Amino acid sequence: MNGSVEGPLAGLRVVEVSAFVAAPIGGMTLAQLGAEVIRIDPIGGNIDIGRWPLAPSGTSLYWAGLNKGKRSVTLALNSPEGREIATALIAEAGILLTNLPAAEGWMSFATLSQRRADLIMLRLTGTHDGGNAIDYTVNAAVGFPTATGEDERPVNHVLPAWDVAAGLYLCTGLLAAERRRTRTGQGGEVTLALSDVAYATAATLGYVADVQVNGAVRPPLGNWLYGAFGRDFATKDGRRVMLAAISGRQWRAIGKATKLAEKLSLIGQVMEVDMDDEGGRYAAREAIAAVLAPWFAARTLDQVRDALDGSGVLWGPYQDFGQMVREDPRCSTANPMFHDIEQPGAGRLLVPASPLQPAAPPRPAPRLGGDTDAVLAEVLGLSPARIAAYREAGVLARDGG
Amino acid sequence: MNGSVEGPLAGLRVVEVSAFVAAPIGGMTLAQLGAEVIRIDPIGGNIDIGRWPLAPSGTSLYWAGLNKGKRSVTLALNSPEGREIATALIAEAGILLTNLPAAEGWMSFATLSQRRADLIMLRLTGTHDGGNAIDYTVNAAVGFPTATGEDERPVNHVLPAWDVAAGLYLCTGLLAAERRRTRTGQGGEVTLALSDVAYATAATLGYVADVQVNGAVRPPLGNWLYGAFGRDFATKDGRRVMLAAISGRQWRAIGKATKLAEKLSLIGQVMEVDMDDEGGRYAAREAIAAVLAPWFAARTLDQVRDALDGSGVLWGPYQDFGQMVREDPRCSTANPMFHDIEQPGAGRLLVPASPLQPAAPPRPAPRLGGDTDAVLAEVLGLSPARIAAYREAGVLARDGG
Repeated sequence: MNGSVEGPLAGLRVVEVSAFVAAPIGGMTLAQLGAEVIRIDPIGGNIDIGRWPLAPSGTSLYWAGLNKGKRSVTLALNSPEGREIATALIAEAGILLTNLPAAEGWMSFATLSQRRADLIMLRLTGTHDGGNAIDYTVNAAVGFPTATGEDERPVNHVLPAWDVAAGLYLCTGLLAAERRRTRTGQGGEVTLALSDVAYATAATLGYVADVQVNGAVRPPLGNWLYGAFGRDFATKDGRRVMLAAISGRQWRAIGKATKLAEKLSLIGQVMEVDMDDEGGRYAAREAIAAVLAPWFAARTLDQVRDALDGSGVLWGPYQDFGQMVREDPRCSTANPMFHDIEQPGAGRLLVPASPLQPAAPPRPAPRLGGDTDAVLAEVLGLSPARIAAYREAGVLARDGG
Repeated sequence: MNGSVEGPLAGLRVVEVSAFVAAPIGGMTLAQLGAEVIRIDPIGGNIDIGRWPLAPSGTSLYWAGLNKGKRSVTLALNSPEGREIATALIAEAGILLTNLPAAEGWMSFATLSQRRADLIMLRLTGTHDGGNAIDYTVNAAVGFPTATGEDERPVNHVLPAWDVAAGLYLCTGLLAAERRRTRTGQGGEVTLALSDVAYATAATLGYVADVQVNGAVRPPLGNWLYGAFGRDFATKDGRRVMLAAISGRQWRAIGKATKLAEKLSLIGQVMEVDMDDEGGRYAAREAIAAVLAPWFAARTLDQVRDALDGSGVLWGPYQDFGQMVREDPRCSTANPMFHDIEQPGAGRLLVPASPLQPAAPPRPAPRLGGDTDAVLAEVLGLSPARIAAYREAGVLARDGG
């Protein structure tokens, strides 16, 4: 995509009717790649419009982050006229992405496909069998919290990893379905259960098979890697770093950079393991860490950086969100992915383009409802008089969103 | 995709040269959707071929999980002939997906595009500026471990969430690039840095803006939700459940199902917050939990399930990987996503199809190198004699993988 300003999905139009994280990430990712993504909300916004964190103005930084580059249309979706306009927009676009309950009713595939026979509809659900679920409840069910931290009390992740994965699955599924429609003319409904994303991923990573084949249930390992050497270490100045070796070369680099290769090689004899094998190093991990910990404890983070950067050692500092934003050049405009742009309601922000590079520059999130009139005119060909009549009737918002 | 056995990507051919998690998940996801994905490895396998967990036979359950549905070709990639065959396969397929160092040399876009002008190449790197990185070091840099758990010591996640997200980004980017090539004839190289996936996601979720706009650095909150009510609770029989309310309806359902609505509503007066607002409930979370904890402590998990299922309450049990596999019907063939199939070297396993449903049934991972001769014949038109000569010369493995 070298040198292009336009994203690869230029010309693709998608309607999104959504809330929260997963479906909005799906639409946002497509918008970052050049698709025209029209998010339709009820007048006043959907349930996620005020989600924390907020800017002092009351603008949701969460909503702004998840809806970058989209167009925003608000309609009185509780009225027949509002639903008719939404239906017309969906039929015109030919692709709908949603996480709202839409198995039945006006937004169901059965109803919408009467208006557009080759409609593609991506529908995110909680569980495959109709249950409610969000990232937190899915994560609890799928084993990872019980294997996180150091004891048997489960530890929730903070990253909504299943929502993020589900959003990206929705993109993949949408583009796959659109590819098929281009070749065969056939649309269809594709459903994705948030809980299935989690179960499938646990299985793909071997956790299910390890139980079935070996009867092994992965216990919590704290910050240790599983099956290879890796752990966090404290530095002299109160920082922590993560160190890992998942190849022989990376392992040898640790010995060389710390000048502890000789001591580390003796561990093999002491512990009776093969230190050239990552399983051996995993078995001897406590002894390895005991040799390495004083090296880190004797050095500041800057000294660790000087010694390890460019050495082939796989390592990195822990950073809280503040340190990441204030100290890490990779989280700044020194990284071509990041741009400094104006987000209405929030001011100038560091905003990422798609990490798929090269990418078009990022666009801010819209003002809620800010594109309603333009979209109704462009996509449905409605006249200014017709739009004014809808506004008068309360089908469109009378003041902005 | 109703009723189809074939996936939507039937007819798409991709060559993958990869190791570990992210790029293999990308290729696997495409294969599950019907693409022909040819993974090329050096003879004997790449560095991930023996990664834990293993079956008693020595087969890596990790590798088997991540390479489902692919074809496996092994070549002496350290020889000019092996590289020539790989180059010919890539040129013929027209799409390459890799996470190996390929900025320069025979597998670089510059070199390969001389053989196929409209080549599409997806290349995963560690950091955007050429640094090494894996999920663990990326995660340390990006703030989440410092906000996980209950104190300031960072807690690593166990799910390789950035690898999973990167794999799905690769799918999205590949399909977007292929869509553009179909329309314009133009290929190109797309790079994705694992660390950029993490920084971009942290920004999308509002963590970067919260620092920039509010100077707020999210602290560790244990198992509490941020900005709404949610936490884990212990049951009478020693299990734990996750409970959350991210809508007013879900909040009211908790009061109704536990018959504690009246007490919960009094908390608003006591704590001087608006209990109809999720920010108010977040502020009063300790008091809410104090009211709810005895209700859970007085009931077994089964009793909790009886009271809450079907009530509109958003909740779920914590399960370790064993409980998930042995007790949860959603992680069984009662879920249409899961199938019971034979995985060579591991026996019969519960294997997921794509969570994008309906989906074609899953296919097992190949035997390493098991498709070499068939792929060389089908894709490159090599004769049996030619293949035998390559084998004799050591360009192909003499015995299997």
